[in-house]
Amino acid sequence: MTGALMQEENKCQFRVWAPEKESMMLHIVHPVDMLVDMQKDKQGYFSVTINDIKAGTRYFFQPEPGKDLPDVASQFQPEGVFGPSEVVDHQSFKWQDKEWKGMPIKDMIMYEIHVGTFTEEGTFEAIIPLLDDLVETGINALELMPVAQFPGVRNWGYDGVFPFAIQHSYGGPAGLKNLVDACHAKGIAVFLDVVYNHIGPEGNHFNEFAPYFTDHYHTPWGDAVNFDGAYSDGVRNYFSDNAIYWFEYFHFDGLRLDAIHSIFDNGAVHFWDFVNNKVNGLELKLGRHLYLIAESDLNDTKVIRSPEVGGYGFDAQWLDDFHHSAYVQIDENGKDRYKDFRRLDQLAKAFTDGFVHSGEYVEFRKRKHGSSSAGISGKKFVVFNQNHDQVGNREKGERLSILVNAERLKLAAGTLLLSPYIPLLFMGEEYGEDQPFFYFVNHADPDLVNAVREGRKNEFKDFNWAADPPDPQAEKTFIDSKLQWQKRNKGSYGIIHAWYKALIQMRKLPALQTFKKNNIRVYVLENKGLVLHRRSEDESQYILCFLNFSSGAISYTLPGSAESWTTLLDSNDSKWQTRDHKKFEAHSISEKGKLVIPPLSVIVLAAIDQIM
Amino acid sequence: MTGALMQEENKCQFRVWAPEKESMMLHIVHPVDMLVDMQKDKQGYFSVTINDIKAGTRYFFQPEPGKDLPDVASQFQPEGVFGPSEVVDHQSFKWQDKEWKGMPIKDMIMYEIHVGTFTEEGTFEAIIPLLDDLVETGINALELMPVAQFPGVRNWGYDGVFPFAIQHSYGGPAGLKNLVDACHAKGIAVFLDVVYNHIGPEGNHFNEFAPYFTDHYHTPWGDAVNFDGAYSDGVRNYFSDNAIYWFEYFHFDGLRLDAIHSIFDNGAVHFWDFVNNKVNGLELKLGRHLYLIAESDLNDTKVIRSPEVGGYGFDAQWLDDFHHSAYVQIDENGKDRYKDFRRLDQLAKAFTDGFVHSGEYVEFRKRKHGSSSAGISGKKFVVFNQNHDQVGNREKGERLSILVNAERLKLAAGTLLLSPYIPLLFMGEEYGEDQPFFYFVNHADPDLVNAVREGRKNEFKDFNWAADPPDPQAEKTFIDSKLQWQKRNKGSYGIIHAWYKALIQMRKLPALQTFKKNNIRVYVLENKGLVLHRRSEDESQYILCFLNFSSGAISYTLPGSAESWTTLLDSNDSKWQTRDHKKFEAHSISEKGKLVIPPLSVIVLAAIDQIM
Repeated sequence: MTGALMQEENKCQFRVWAPEKESMMLHIVHPVDMLVDMQKDKQGYFSVTINDIKAGTRYFFQPEPGKDLPDVASQFQPEGVFGPSEVVDHQSFKWQDKEWKGMPIKDMIMYEIHVGTFTEEGTFEAIIPLLDDLVETGINALELMPVAQFPGVRNWGYDGVFPFAIQHSYGGPAGLKNLVDACHAKGIAVFLDVVYNHIGPEGNHFNEFAPYFTDHYHTPWGDAVNFDGAYSDGVRNYFSDNAIYWFEYFHFDGLRLDAIHSIFDNGAVHFWDFVNNKVNGLELKLGRHLYLIAESDLNDTKVIRSPEVGGYGFDAQWLDDFHHSAYVQIDENGKDRYKDFRRLDQLAKAFTDGFVHSGEYVEFRKRKHGSSSAGISGKKFVVFNQNHDQVGNREKGERLSILVNAERLKLAAGTLLLSPYIPLLFMGEEYGEDQPFFYFVNHADPDLVNAVREGRKNEFKDFNWAADPPDPQAEKTFIDSKLQWQKRNKGSYGIIHAWYKALIQMRKLPALQTFKKNNIRVYVLENKGLVLHRRSEDESQYILCFLNFSSGAISYTLPGSAESWTTLLDSNDSKWQTRDHKKFEAHSISEKGKLVIPPLSVIVLAAIDQIM
Repeated sequence: MTGALMQEENKCQFRVWAPEKESMMLHIVHPVDMLVDMQKDKQGYFSVTINDIKAGTRYFFQPEPGKDLPDVASQFQPEGVFGPSEVVDHQSFKWQDKEWKGMPIKDMIMYEIHVGTFTEEGTFEAIIPLLDDLVETGINALELMPVAQFPGVRNWGYDGVFPFAIQHSYGGPAGLKNLVDACHAKGIAVFLDVVYNHIGPEGNHFNEFAPYFTDHYHTPWGDAVNFDGAYSDGVRNYFSDNAIYWFEYFHFDGLRLDAIHSIFDNGAVHFWDFVNNKVNGLELKLGRHLYLIAESDLNDTKVIRSPEVGGYGFDAQWLDDFHHSAYVQIDENGKDRYKDFRRLDQLAKAFTDGFVHSGEYVEFRKRKHGSSSAGISGKKFVVFNQNHDQVGNREKGERLSILVNAERLKLAAGTLLLSPYIPLLFMGEEYGEDQPFFYFVNHADPDLVNAVREGRKNEFKDFNWAADPPDPQAEKTFIDSKLQWQKRNKGSYGIIHAWYKALIQMRKLPALQTFKKNNIRVYVLENKGLVLHRRSEDESQYILCFLNFSSGAISYTLPGSAESWTTLLDSNDSKWQTRDHKKFEAHSISEKGKLVIPPLSVIVLAAIDQIM
C-alpha cells in the first residue's frame, strides 16, 4: 500500500509511487512544518519513515520542488480535495464486531444508500439510529454509494479523486467505522460502491505522480485507467490495495465494482484475477467470505464465471436487463425508454435466464449483444426496480412512486421480490418515498460546473426528452433529494412499507429461497402477465406467483381443484389498499380451479399438497 | 459475404455493406459502362443482382453520387489499389486436390515465403517448380506472407487494403489457386498470413463505406478495427467471411492471424469465438481440419485454450519467447537486443514451459508480463529462429547466416528442430541464404513514402542502433531481398542444407515426435549449454540432445556406460564441416560414460537399452 502508513510506536511510513520522477519530498504541514527527502526503490516507490507522527498530522508530497500536492493515496482530506492529506491511525478504533461472520448472499435484501441524502445530517453517524427501522423492514445488507473523497460536499460519489480517503463531509474514517461496526452489531452486512474505471475531473492529481492512465483505451470519461500498459504494475497494486483496504481497515462485507465494462486489461493476468487472488488471501485470514459484485453491461457470463473457466470470478453482477424488461411492464411510458425490452416474454426470459439480450441485435447498441446466462444460479445476479442511476438519471429524478400509481408500485415490488435473484432496493423505495433523487455536484471550477450542466442536458437527448433538469450545482437540488424518513409508516407510505415487508418475509419460504433455475418455470399469460412456478429444492413446496401487468383480468386454470391451493398473498386484499388505490375485486378460484387474476395484481398461491 | 458474388448462369450479385449510407450505386466500367441503383436491407447491406455478368467484368461502387470507389470486398484489383474491382469466377477452376485430407500439425515443417522475393519472377506460379526442392528438404507446410492487394508491386503484405483481393502482381486469384493445388498434389499444406488488426494506409476506402474502425481502442496503426462497437456486426461478418473465403475458395489449410494482441473485443462473444464457430462449420463440410494459428505477444494461454474454458481456441500460436531466448545464446550480440532474455535457464524454460515471461517483471515492457504455459502441449506453439520480422526488422535485413558463423548457424538449427514445438523456417534459411531481407514498399503518395522512411529509421532507435536502413521505397531494396535459389546445394550452402535435412529427418524419431511436456526434461549444463532428455510416449525410446552454446567444451556424465549410448548426430562430424568452419574434435565418451561436448556443438545420443 501507499500513503501514510502508521506503524507501531508512532512511527509512520510515507510512501508514494512515482516511477518516472527523479526525486520526491514529503512536506509535513501540521502540527509542524517539515520538508523530508524520500528514497526511491527499484519499483518506483518513494518512501520515508518518520518517528513521532500522530494521527492528525497533515502533509503534502512534492513531486516537483515547491509544488505541494495531496497524496493520491490519502486516507483523509479534512479540508477537501485541495487541502493537505491527514495521517489516519487504524489501530485506535476498537471494533466490536469480532463475532461477525458475514452473511450468505442468498439471504440478502440489499439497500442502496447515498449517505449525503439519506438523512438530514448527511453523515455516516446519522444512519446509525435508523438501522433498527431497516432491520424491521427486513433489510440486512447496506450498499453505500461511493464515499471516496470528492470535490465539495455534494456529489453522488462517482467524481471521487481520493479512492482511499473517506469523504470529510460524511464524517471521515471514524464515522465510517462506527457505521460498519453498528451495522454488524445489528446483523447487517455492508457493501461499498468503488470506482476503478476512472478518477473524477476536479482535484485529480494522478497524472502528476505516475502513468495511471493510458490512451490505448477510451472510456466515457476519457483515457482509461492503465491496467495493462507500461508501469501498470503500480496501478494494479494501487487499485487492488484499495479493495483490500476496505475489507481490512473498514470491515466491509463486499464491494460493488462500478462499470467494469469500462475497465480494459488485455494482459495475461486480468486485473480481476489479480484482485481476486488478493481478496482470497484475505478471506483465509479473516475467516469470512468477502463479496465482489460487478456492475457490468457486457451481458457476458465471463464476469461471474470462475477464473478456472476463464471468468473474472465475481460473486454476482447487477442485472440491468431485469430492470429494463420489468420497467416497461410497470410504467406504460417505459416502452419509449427501453425500446429493446418491450416484450413481456423478455421479462419471462429475465426471470428464467438472466440476460435478456443474449446474442440478438439490439437497436440501442446497433449491434448484436450478449451471450446466454441460462442455467446460471440466481444468486449470481442482483436485481432492482430502482437505483441511483435509474432514478437519478431521469431529468426530474423521479422515483417509481411518482411515475406510477400504487397498484403498479406494488406490482413492481412483487416482480422484484418474488424473483429468484438477490434484490436491491434504493433508499426510500420500501415506503414509496416520493422525493426526487437528482444529480448534484459541488465543483469549484466554473468551467467544469458549466460542462456538467450541459452534460446533464445532453444526457436526456437519447430519450428525446425536453431537457430542463434542475441545476446540478445548486444546493437546493441536493437538499430536495433528501429522504423524508418520518413518512415511512404513515398513511399510504405505511401501506407500501407493509407490502414490502410482507414480500421480504415471503422470500423466506423454501420455494422462494431456491436460486436454482431448475426449480423455476415462467409462463406468459395472455400476453398480459406472468406466472412463476416455484418449487423448493426438495420439491416439498410448490408456489405459484401471478403478476398481472395489464389493466384487464387474466383467467388461468390451476392444476388441481380450488381446494388444492391456498392463498399466501393478494395485492387486492383490503389491507394493501392505499388511499389513491383503485378498488379491484380480490382474486377468485372456481371449484374447477379457474383462477381470475384481477388487473395489476400480485397473487401468490401455495399448493396444499404436492400436486404436480 | 460481400463483393461481386458470381452465381449460376452468369448471374452476379453485387453486395456492399454501408449501414449509414442512404443510397449506393454500382458502376460497371468494363466491358460496358452501366450505372445501377442498389437496394438496402435492414442490416445495412446494399445489393443488386445482374444477369449476363462474366468473370473479368470491372466495377466500382458509388457511396456518393459520381464518386467511384473500388469494392472493399473486391476479389481482384487488376489495375492496383486505385483501379476498378474485377469479378472473379470461382466455379471455373478445376481443383485436382479432392483427395487432400490435410495434415496433422505435429508432422509439419513450416516454411514462411514472401511471394515477391522468393523467386526472380515474384509470382505464385514461379513457386511451383521449386516445390520438389522443398519436399526434398523435408518441408511440408508453406506459410505465405499476406497476399491481399497492397499499394504498388512491392510490399511485405501488411499494408494490404483489399483483404479479399489477391495481389495482382503476384498473379491474382488464378495464380494462387494453381499454387495451392500444386502444393496439395505434392503433399504440402498451405497457410496464409492474414491481417485483421488494421488496414493499410494507401488505397484504404473503408471509412467511406462503413464504421470499420473505432476510437475506443488504439493500435500501433491508429484506430482499432471495430469488433465490438456500434455496427460491429458488419465488421465481424466481413473479417470472419474473409477467413472462410480462403478455406472455401482457395483450399488453404490454415491461417496465421497477424498480431492478435492488437484486436480488441470486449463483447460477450469474442471475435475469435465467432470465427471459430464459422470455421468449425466449414470443417464439417470439408471433412478436414482447418488451422487457425495466432501471432500473439500476450503470453496468455487464453489464446490457445479452448472456448469452453474461456479461450480463443487457436490451434497454436507463435512463440516469440523461444526465438528471443535462443537468439541471445546463438548470437553474442543478441544480449543487447533482448535484454529480458539473457539467461540460459530462460531458454531451458522456453523448451519446457513455452512462455519465458510468465508473470515476471519485463524491463522492455516496464511491467509484469504473461502467465505460465507449463504443461501445455508443444503442438500448440510454432517456433522459429528467423522469420520476416526477425530478419527484416533489422536495419540491414541480415539473416542469421550473416550474423553468426557456420557452427552457430548449425547450433541454431539444432535448437529449433530438436525442440518439442512446430518449427517454422524462413525461406532460404534451410541453406543459409545470405541475401538480406529488407523492408520495402512501393507507395504512390510522396508524403507516405517519407513517413515510412522516417518510421524505419525510428524503428531501430529502440535498439540504439545507428539507423541507416536502405530506402524502403527503392526497387533495388526489393530486388536485393530476393533469394538466390541456385546456391541451395552448392558448397557451404549445400552443407547447411544437408544439416537441416538431417535434423528434419531426425524429428521423425518417436522420442522427438512427442509434444507432451511430460516426456521432456531440460537441464542447464555449466551455464554453457543444455541437455534435452526426450522420451517417446511409450517410453521405448530415450534420446539426449546436447546443445553447447559456449566456445568451451562441456563435460557430462551419462547415465550408464559408454556402451549404453549410440551417437545419432554430431555437428562436428566432418560431413558437416563448411569451408569457414572451425575444426573441433568430435565429441567423445569415456568408458565410464563421461561425455565431452565440444564448443558450439549439437550432439544427439540415443540409449541403446532403456536405462532410466
